[in-house]
Amino acid sequence: MADKSLNRSTAHLDDAIWGHKWGYADTRLFVRPDQMVEMTGSRYNLCGYPMPYLIPFAEEALGVKLDLSKTRPEVAKYAITPARLDAAFVATLAATFRPDQISSDDEVRLVHSHGQTTVDEVSKVLYGRIDRCVDLVVYPESHEQCMALVQAALKHNICLIPYGGGTNVTSALIIPESETRFVTSVDMRRLNKIEWVDTENMVACVQAGILGSALEAELEKQGLTCGHEPDSVELSTLGGWISTNASGMKKNRYGNIEDIVENITLVTPAGVVEELSAMPRVSMGMQVQRALFGSEGNLGLITRAVIHIHKLPAVKKYNAIVFKDWPTGVEFMRELNATGVLPASIRLVDNIQFRFSQALKAAPEGMHLLTDKVQKFVVTKVKGFDPYQMVAATIVMEGADHEVAHQEKVVSAVAKKHGGVVAGATNGQRGYMLTYAIAYIRDMLADYYIIGETYETTAPWSKIHDVCAAVERTVIEQHKLAGFPGKPYASPRITQMYHTGVCIYFTHGFYHKGIDEAEEKFAAMEKVIRQAIMDAGGSISHHHGVGKLRAEFMPRVISPTAAEAVRDLKEGLDPQNIFGARNNVLFETRAE
Amino acid sequence: MADKSLNRSTAHLDDAIWGHKWGYADTRLFVRPDQMVEMTGSRYNLCGYPMPYLIPFAEEALGVKLDLSKTRPEVAKYAITPARLDAAFVATLAATFRPDQISSDDEVRLVHSHGQTTVDEVSKVLYGRIDRCVDLVVYPESHEQCMALVQAALKHNICLIPYGGGTNVTSALIIPESETRFVTSVDMRRLNKIEWVDTENMVACVQAGILGSALEAELEKQGLTCGHEPDSVELSTLGGWISTNASGMKKNRYGNIEDIVENITLVTPAGVVEELSAMPRVSMGMQVQRALFGSEGNLGLITRAVIHIHKLPAVKKYNAIVFKDWPTGVEFMRELNATGVLPASIRLVDNIQFRFSQALKAAPEGMHLLTDKVQKFVVTKVKGFDPYQMVAATIVMEGADHEVAHQEKVVSAVAKKHGGVVAGATNGQRGYMLTYAIAYIRDMLADYYIIGETYETTAPWSKIHDVCAAVERTVIEQHKLAGFPGKPYASPRITQMYHTGVCIYFTHGFYHKGIDEAEEKFAAMEKVIRQAIMDAGGSISHHHGVGKLRAEFMPRVISPTAAEAVRDLKEGLDPQNIFGARNNVLFETRAE
Repeated sequence: MADKSLNRSTAHLDDAIWGHKWGYADTRLFVRPDQMVEMTGSRYNLCGYPMPYLIPFAEEALGVKLDLSKTRPEVAKYAITPARLDAAFVATLAATFRPDQISSDDEVRLVHSHGQTTVDEVSKVLYGRIDRCVDLVVYPESHEQCMALVQAALKHNICLIPYGGGTNVTSALIIPESETRFVTSVDMRRLNKIEWVDTENMVACVQAGILGSALEAELEKQGLTCGHEPDSVELSTLGGWISTNASGMKKNRYGNIEDIVENITLVTPAGVVEELSAMPRVSMGMQVQRALFGSEGNLGLITRAVIHIHKLPAVKKYNAIVFKDWPTGVEFMRELNATGVLPASIRLVDNIQFRFSQALKAAPEGMHLLTDKVQKFVVTKVKGFDPYQMVAATIVMEGADHEVAHQEKVVSAVAKKHGGVVAGATNGQRGYMLTYAIAYIRDMLADYYIIGETYETTAPWSKIHDVCAAVERTVIEQHKLAGFPGKPYASPRITQMYHTGVCIYFTHGFYHKGIDEAEEKFAAMEKVIRQAIMDAGGSISHHHGVGKLRAEFMPRVISPTAAEAVRDLKEGLDPQNIFGARNNVLFETRAE
Repeated sequence: MADKSLNRSTAHLDDAIWGHKWGYADTRLFVRPDQMVEMTGSRYNLCGYPMPYLIPFAEEALGVKLDLSKTRPEVAKYAITPARLDAAFVATLAATFRPDQISSDDEVRLVHSHGQTTVDEVSKVLYGRIDRCVDLVVYPESHEQCMALVQAALKHNICLIPYGGGTNVTSALIIPESETRFVTSVDMRRLNKIEWVDTENMVACVQAGILGSALEAELEKQGLTCGHEPDSVELSTLGGWISTNASGMKKNRYGNIEDIVENITLVTPAGVVEELSAMPRVSMGMQVQRALFGSEGNLGLITRAVIHIHKLPAVKKYNAIVFKDWPTGVEFMRELNATGVLPASIRLVDNIQFRFSQALKAAPEGMHLLTDKVQKFVVTKVKGFDPYQMVAATIVMEGADHEVAHQEKVVSAVAKKHGGVVAGATNGQRGYMLTYAIAYIRDMLADYYIIGETYETTAPWSKIHDVCAAVERTVIEQHKLAGFPGKPYASPRITQMYHTGVCIYFTHGFYHKGIDEAEEKFAAMEKVIRQAIMDAGGSISHHHGVGKLRAEFMPRVISPTAAEAVRDLKEGLDPQNIFGARNNVLFETRAE
């Protein structure tokens, strides 16, 4: 439940956001008395109809019978550490900021003190307490105000933590234990203007606090798009995308964030880092800008960026293709990738996720719910396909007529070779529904003692099966070791393809009623899983990033001297550690 | 003329290289007694036949009559500053290196003391003297030897300058005036092995001193290619490509060097910078590796890199399309780019270069040379096209059948809209001949008091005409100001296209007989031209880089704090400035 007392007018630019849980406050899933699930509001295709299969699917997948009569009790009142006072700092701020740009309100501070990591952050807010809240929240409205804020922080030795959409899942916003200073969260979301659009060269200069949804809405008015669609696109910001090195669903057409951004303006304690004019490719020597992707709040405030824009595509088409099993689906993806002809997005979901998306269907007219025949909702008419083996590739094609037609031709030919059966646009769209709904589903399931989390990795083509097997094995082992009831749900999908490998995205859920310290046990388990992923050839992260959650794995990723070079950069740009979030390799130095 | 006394066995891995001039020693152009030009050897399509039009074309383009009876006299003996001795350093080296891995031979030192900048380097060697030669050349053969070399340099406070193919055109190899230490050139070309090839994931680990030509030859044996084709591909090295942030002709298919390289191993005085396993896209926080492209020898020795490889394409096709004039050609390029369907390479040459490539044709059977009707060799059969206006797009397509067919269809449709006329594969290939021949032509023309240089820039789409006009205007003005005879030849081509702009590559030539200090005058002129390019909206460089030649322009490119951040990186990785080449923003600090 969102706390109604939350001062939304300063906490959010958009009144409609939950705050601690994921997403829009008009949108949540709930279990009806007839045990069907419904999604409120009208934002998504899933909204407004009863879903009879979701609870049965969850029960089958988790091997437990849910007690729907009692929800897990949230805290009666959020635990919020009291704000400290730094009157001198606030007095300095008053020279630049209006009173409505500064808040020490408890609810506001709490919202700005966490991201969306399930057990480290959201669960702690809802069911326990987070260790420390920021002392103040400031809402700059311009690049110049950001400069003034950094100067004020330098003067008074204040710790600043940049805040974008608050959707990170790396515990990047958690205040380091070693931090003793006054901590100010810098909410960037009022830097939300498109400064200019240049349709001759297809670039735009955009303030970094703009939400993805607002950016797309503004551009769309001019027949344009940026095309960057991380799963969080509705809520996350341009600056957040840069800081986390984000990846978009449609990267095959629009690129990942590092392909999209042509220039970054970063306000650091040492001054402004930027290129003096945005340019297509340049050979200008070492480009420090290229190292700012993934800076995770460690260096300064990203105030604006120059980004690529595109005309809205003439054609947008969905499709889905089903294959008999996961290995066949993977082979299809690999061969399609080798053709070089890639739809804007193509993703392969495993059988569990395939059934999950089927479980979001409405009840057929007059149907009675048959929990013991839950598989009935799965498409079984495909000849010879086992509903408990089949997988699906969901596809979005964008572009000119000729381009989409060419893609369809190539995709069909490759699919045919692998026995793929076209399942059509509706099934294609269904796959994408799950993307936007998954975090809301997490928040509903939390009420019934189910913890859900996602994690992802990069894997070379040859390691896909090793990585998936390692996760499956480890999740089962760890589940047993922790003594959780039932069985874990752990399901991969391939969300991005590259020349040399893929992104694998895992959804993990389990039931924990009756188990003490379930959150702590899962947090420990997640590290064991990451270790297993990396042992099997996967990366530390494909696009979520490192933050604090995976900082301990960095010695497995880069050489000590490379880590030292990052620290050299930090030391040069922020010698006083004003930006004290201490993510990534800076986390190791917390004891200093 | 190459000096025959040159000790090629230590100076070069390949005996067949000129050394100071460009390219292979079996290849040069010369003017025959009948005033036709011939190219020796058999490496290129241009070799072995008389070209009657080249001298008339040059005379027409430069507005002068060449005196072919007398060539410009080269120095009788190369001026080579004497090697200093550092017996202690050499003694330390002896623990690791065989005698044939170390040379203090004068010729060898001279070859390693310059790149291919025309007036700052090549002209000085041939007609004058370069200020200072390196004292020693070392040829490491392994990553471990590179580590030992850096340690030895640290111990004895030696300046190291990495040397790849010696083809840079940014004066990057020139020893800084302020450098007082013993200077050792590190010739990387014996680190030339492919360490492993992984065809499952299409990556290979390659030692960084490998020549492009050797890399391609080795991969081709396995049906593979890297596909990186800078104009220098025959002579330049993988490490050099990374250091200069190189671009390849076929980047539309294979990417530029930063797209191709997945991991870099850099030996610095502070240790080895690398990622511990090469990976497709990862979100791992600030990737210092991304800032190593363009490091221009400032940080250390690049010993190996993991690079993308591809299967050799099933189909490779050339084509050319002529358009009535430059603006029409540019519009064609722009519209084709917007389709997203791009051949591996597509380049647009202006009318002068179009005629230049036509001037490389052989004499028709029984033809008499008509210098006053030089335009006769230009294709004029295209209806309504003025031979002094028309331009050509030259195209290389690579890929699967369906891919090349799709490209042909799209290219044809767009070309038709702009009145383009297909000129066919032979004309397409002719465009590429000029690429490989241009530096040899430069070296021949130098004999006849013609200085030729190339420079390039990035320009947003909307600035192409402004940049070209600025170059034309400035070149003419400066030519007049300097008092050079005749008129300058200055000709653009568009060699790369990006979402937001292009690379424009200029070829510049002029006659300087009878003018004092022509080289110095051109060096000054080149800076005025770069200023004009940047004033008109062009970049400091698209792919040549900055080195020392353009270092003074860096304050126009990045913010002071961004420059400081590069220096922070340098300070951290190489506090003793062992890698003392002082290129790019480190050039500014020469006075320290």
